[in-house]
Amino acid sequence: MKLCRYNDNRLGLVEGDHIIDVTGALAALPAHKYPAPRNDQLIENLAMLRPGILEAAKSGARLPLAGAHLLSPVANPGKVVAAPVNYQAHFDEAQHDDEIRHGTQIVKIQTIGLFLKATSSIVGMSHGVEINDIERRNDHEIELVAIIGKPARHVKIENALDYVAGYCIGLDMTVRGPQERSMRKSIDTYTVLGPWMATADEIGDPHDLNLALTVNGEPRQSNNTANLLVKVRELIAWASSYYTLHPGDVLMTGTPDGVGPVAPGDVIDARIDKLGAMKVNVRAAKV
Amino acid sequence: MKLCRYNDNRLGLVEGDHIIDVTGALAALPAHKYPAPRNDQLIENLAMLRPGILEAAKSGARLPLAGAHLLSPVANPGKVVAAPVNYQAHFDEAQHDDEIRHGTQIVKIQTIGLFLKATSSIVGMSHGVEINDIERRNDHEIELVAIIGKPARHVKIENALDYVAGYCIGLDMTVRGPQERSMRKSIDTYTVLGPWMATADEIGDPHDLNLALTVNGEPRQSNNTANLLVKVRELIAWASSYYTLHPGDVLMTGTPDGVGPVAPGDVIDARIDKLGAMKVNVRAAKV
Repeated sequence: MKLCRYNDNRLGLVEGDHIIDVTGALAALPAHKYPAPRNDQLIENLAMLRPGILEAAKSGARLPLAGAHLLSPVANPGKVVAAPVNYQAHFDEAQHDDEIRHGTQIVKIQTIGLFLKATSSIVGMSHGVEINDIERRNDHEIELVAIIGKPARHVKIENALDYVAGYCIGLDMTVRGPQERSMRKSIDTYTVLGPWMATADEIGDPHDLNLALTVNGEPRQSNNTANLLVKVRELIAWASSYYTLHPGDVLMTGTPDGVGPVAPGDVIDARIDKLGAMKVNVRAAKV
Repeated sequence: MKLCRYNDNRLGLVEGDHIIDVTGALAALPAHKYPAPRNDQLIENLAMLRPGILEAAKSGARLPLAGAHLLSPVANPGKVVAAPVNYQAHFDEAQHDDEIRHGTQIVKIQTIGLFLKATSSIVGMSHGVEINDIERRNDHEIELVAIIGKPARHVKIENALDYVAGYCIGLDMTVRGPQERSMRKSIDTYTVLGPWMATADEIGDPHDLNLALTVNGEPRQSNNTANLLVKVRELIAWASSYYTLHPGDVLMTGTPDGVGPVAPGDVIDARIDKLGAMKVNVRAAKV
């Protein structure tokens, strides 16, 4: 099942180049008064909602994907956990490019661990990226993203993929500099998720997916998730040994080599096998 | 106004050693279906709710503070922004204690910037701290915490305090090691907020508050917020130059010298002028 969120928080089932409107299925989710649930209610209740979504699809309006404004497939993530330098080829390029490492040491992921990005940095592909400070170098980083489906705490590596609700493409946009990653990568619009979420059953093994990114049609990044240094199941187990991963939490698995700068006016094309493709426009932020 | 959250998400006005139940005032907040609001609805609507809270207090039940289970004063923070080494005396001790710096360089806050903690790490004082890995060194860090009241983006230093809804005490619990702060400080229960939120008008200048922390009655940390290297207003302006601060976002301003380990069975007493005191029990996490 490929589920998208679009326009004014509508829910859609993606089939080929069309969306089928299944927003009606969300009626099964209860309303909440303050305090709000801390987890994403769509993701947490996906198994319960699935029959209603398929039923709604039988009579749902069809619209062309090309005309829809695609939002982040996760509306209420509690946190965004991200893996630094998790492909050897990106480790190597970072070691040798002072514009990337900016006077800091590039430390192995096994030592430096995972970092966080602000959930307020998340947008869907149709929103586009707003460069905050065009005087600094702002890089694209394509990543496979896993979306957590149920609470995970001290999870074993061999069971870890059972906790994944689905996958999507992520852009971990990054301004280079000496600051900690959790600051440099948390700028508004610097986490692009999309184009939709493909449920885990559609993907099977997440460690055999080609990912590719171009800027204005020029190839920049091309690799395969088989080359992840710390695999998706290991990342989940590791994160869960520190903190509980909750339904809707987003796990960005790291970017391969080929990262590079973008500027206002650029168009990023990011695609991953089985997950689709997203076109993301880059513009300057209004200040 | 001192506002606490207690027991089963009740709202209370704190007066001396009593709580007045003003939960009824929350009826003015609307219910939401999916997706949930991304900001804390109590904090965002505090000005609108204030008359209703004062009205409810006239007839609200009174209960002793000592008998209440105090929750985090913020229920739905979007993010927790935190300042590393923001007192010179803590910078100096960290430089000279390899158990704190763990083979890494201690970099000036002005260079390394702000970091994030997971919102899933937040608990109220009555919950207590659960040590995740007792083989490692787990430290207490008392901090003044500012709670953001309205959206702040590219805010000027001179206006920055206008964006603060209130203040509380924070414990930035930390496991020492080589990992990035956003991982080591995001363990479940490692962000203790409380005992309540004092609205900004109660505090006035946040740069003249004594803070003190004891463990089992033994003095550990004692300093004054006058010694913050980067002031509260500067932290807000700086953070807002990267990302939007939203109502309910939590800003931890950094800890002074005297950090040290705690172990299961310890009792932490943390107090800050005008904000009260909180007693926090430490136990081992169940695995």
